[in-house]
Amino acid sequence: MKQRMIIDMDEVMADTIAKLVRVMELETGLTVNEEAIQGKGLWEGYPDGYRQSLTGILHRKGFFEDLPVYPNAVPVMRELNEKYEVFIVSAAMEFPNSLQDKYNWLGVHFPFLTWHQIALTGSKSLVHGDIMIDDRTKNLDPFPGKGYLYTAHHNLGITEYPRVNNWEEIGNEFL
Amino acid sequence: MKQRMIIDMDEVMADTIAKLVRVMELETGLTVNEEAIQGKGLWEGYPDGYRQSLTGILHRKGFFEDLPVYPNAVPVMRELNEKYEVFIVSAAMEFPNSLQDKYNWLGVHFPFLTWHQIALTGSKSLVHGDIMIDDRTKNLDPFPGKGYLYTAHHNLGITEYPRVNNWEEIGNEFL
Repeated sequence: MKQRMIIDMDEVMADTIAKLVRVMELETGLTVNEEAIQGKGLWEGYPDGYRQSLTGILHRKGFFEDLPVYPNAVPVMRELNEKYEVFIVSAAMEFPNSLQDKYNWLGVHFPFLTWHQIALTGSKSLVHGDIMIDDRTKNLDPFPGKGYLYTAHHNLGITEYPRVNNWEEIGNEFL
Repeated sequence: MKQRMIIDMDEVMADTIAKLVRVMELETGLTVNEEAIQGKGLWEGYPDGYRQSLTGILHRKGFFEDLPVYPNAVPVMRELNEKYEVFIVSAAMEFPNSLQDKYNWLGVHFPFLTWHQIALTGSKSLVHGDIMIDDRTKNLDPFPGKGYLYTAHHNLGITEYPRVNNWEEIGNEFL
């Protein structure tokens, strides 16, 4: 029986931050202070009062539909999908306009995954499996299998989980 | 710690079939043959060739947004939500236009549930918990907790699971 692998979307498959930073720059003229966000939330890279702008952008219909894909995610996922029982689990429910965007995005970039393999949840504490790859410890902590932290600016410094830094490393670890 | 209870939407909380039958009647003039669907799929209640019409209706944007709520579902759910860790899990991914409809429907009828408690999945084999209430054995079979079959026309005759026939019985069993 194949091991079940649960893979996150935002900041693991999709470069959500790249688009968010670009839209913020287009709309406010402000660029992110990269130093200020190491080990912290993205809003720490903007002046006070911009947190609401970031959240507003995330709530827009269409925001999640054209996110850039991380390098090597497609070919590595294609092989993982042969070897493991892969599920894509995204904690999307906070942003209801993202639900169909995320479904569409997966169809465009990962057409070899079927709708059976997608779950859009409020909480990831609901899911079980053998392996989880996620950029948030709050998702890995309740997971009954083995968790791997996908490196993101906000999780630098966390040492509780084995880390994967990019999709090449995911390939090396799991294929 | 509260027990985790996983509750299905279609044909447990929402009377999906009532709306589907009504739309079919409006659009084709055909009423369902109630006798023909006992223990069987809804399409068995229509002449050959109507299966595609049923699927087409289910795929429409807005279909799932105004489904009738089953009697007593709201007050019983309100109490279950105090006593249990309730999650609403719907296998919605086959119908991507339903995703936001389902989110909206829950917000209208069950405003005391939060987005943290909602999951829209392809497969329910992904979720774990203590109790699951569902009208499909394919969802109950892989569930590691205790499954309860919510009675629907298509599951009559199944004896593998304890049954709940309506929300009054759910209240009596779990409150």
